[in-house]
Amino acid sequence: MAANTHDVIMLFGDSITQGGWVPGGFGQRLAENYARKMDVINRGLSGYQTKWAIPMFEQIFAMQHQQLHVPKVQLLTIWFGANDAAPFPNRQHVPRDQYRENLEHLVNMVRSPTSPYYSPSTRIILITPPPVNSHQRQDRNFDATKSYAEVVNELGTALAIPVADVWTAMWDASGRDERALEKFLHDGLHLNEAGYEVVYNLIMKIIEEKYPEIHYDRLEMVFPPYWANVEVE
Amino acid sequence: MAANTHDVIMLFGDSITQGGWVPGGFGQRLAENYARKMDVINRGLSGYQTKWAIPMFEQIFAMQHQQLHVPKVQLLTIWFGANDAAPFPNRQHVPRDQYRENLEHLVNMVRSPTSPYYSPSTRIILITPPPVNSHQRQDRNFDATKSYAEVVNELGTALAIPVADVWTAMWDASGRDERALEKFLHDGLHLNEAGYEVVYNLIMKIIEEKYPEIHYDRLEMVFPPYWANVEVE
Repeated sequence: MAANTHDVIMLFGDSITQGGWVPGGFGQRLAENYARKMDVINRGLSGYQTKWAIPMFEQIFAMQHQQLHVPKVQLLTIWFGANDAAPFPNRQHVPRDQYRENLEHLVNMVRSPTSPYYSPSTRIILITPPPVNSHQRQDRNFDATKSYAEVVNELGTALAIPVADVWTAMWDASGRDERALEKFLHDGLHLNEAGYEVVYNLIMKIIEEKYPEIHYDRLEMVFPPYWANVEVE
Repeated sequence: MAANTHDVIMLFGDSITQGGWVPGGFGQRLAENYARKMDVINRGLSGYQTKWAIPMFEQIFAMQHQQLHVPKVQLLTIWFGANDAAPFPNRQHVPRDQYRENLEHLVNMVRSPTSPYYSPSTRIILITPPPVNSHQRQDRNFDATKSYAEVVNELGTALAIPVADVWTAMWDASGRDERALEKFLHDGLHLNEAGYEVVYNLIMKIIEEKYPEIHYDRLEMVFPPYWANVEVE
């Protein structure tokens, strides 16, 4: 049984988060760099949008009376929108206003003092959905996803939560050419290694600027370096 | 705070375990394949040998009275020897007999009903240290590491615990040519992606043959697939 020794970075989202364990994925990169400092917990749920995500998050994030016994979530990334933005009548579709409300609800579950999940020490990063290459992925719409990304940016400003704006970063890095997105998206929707590198860099930039105290360079190893053992022999 | 929703695979060892998060590493591969089924917890401690590992394991593995509150360790890999086998007077050196006793102690912490860490549901895999390419790594000795690998194989037989015999698998795959080990070891001691692939394959073969009930193909996802939500709408 695993003792509660390491704080964690929790990645919450859809298939793009679930896929973050691939070589070069943002989960893999975080885990490698935070080794011996924080564990990375991937709670990506393929196919989910914000409506289905809320009841899952009620199980994934510990309630206050449990929090003493479980790992402290120092950083939580919330990354939905790729499925919410699927056009109606796709059953994954969540209307834009509802998407915004659901995201705000997820944030408030952690940030509101009256929430049973209140965790004031948990830092949050919101992530915008990546731009869609609709030439490759015809069940998604470029402009719809763009407008869902805007919701995340607006919400981040309104709630004073940093946003990793993957949509804009990838769009700009593709020269604002939809077909050029294939550099980052292997199927028009899901990220390849280059895509995840963009995400990882945005997250680390936010950590450096907004949450420097949890940058891996600032954290001590949980267990002592081996030379500590050599010296006390 | 992270609720206790997923059982875990715990990787316990030295720098070769700690490095398991690299792209293609055995931690990365396990995490990718076990996504939504089990979490992978990397407790690799660079530079450690079995003597220094025991007091750390007393903190890493939960005691019985804590076990209800913490994730269940379904699989534990124990992988030391690369540092134990460093020749005296290297301060990491652990004599061969002591190495065997320490490994047995680690196993008994989990398997002995009288141990405060007793966890009968935790499956164990022992891993032999990889062969050393002493042309590249002059502070290690080829034959010494070989004899420490033999200890692990003997102990596995004696205790009826499956052994992932990385030493033999890499040695054979190198045509029993020490210089050819560079195919698997980037510095003569630590594994590259091809080296970790050998390790991952040995672990998955043991899971298939000895612990098939925890093969990722046999495990349900902890949270329902998204189409379960679609259907109940």
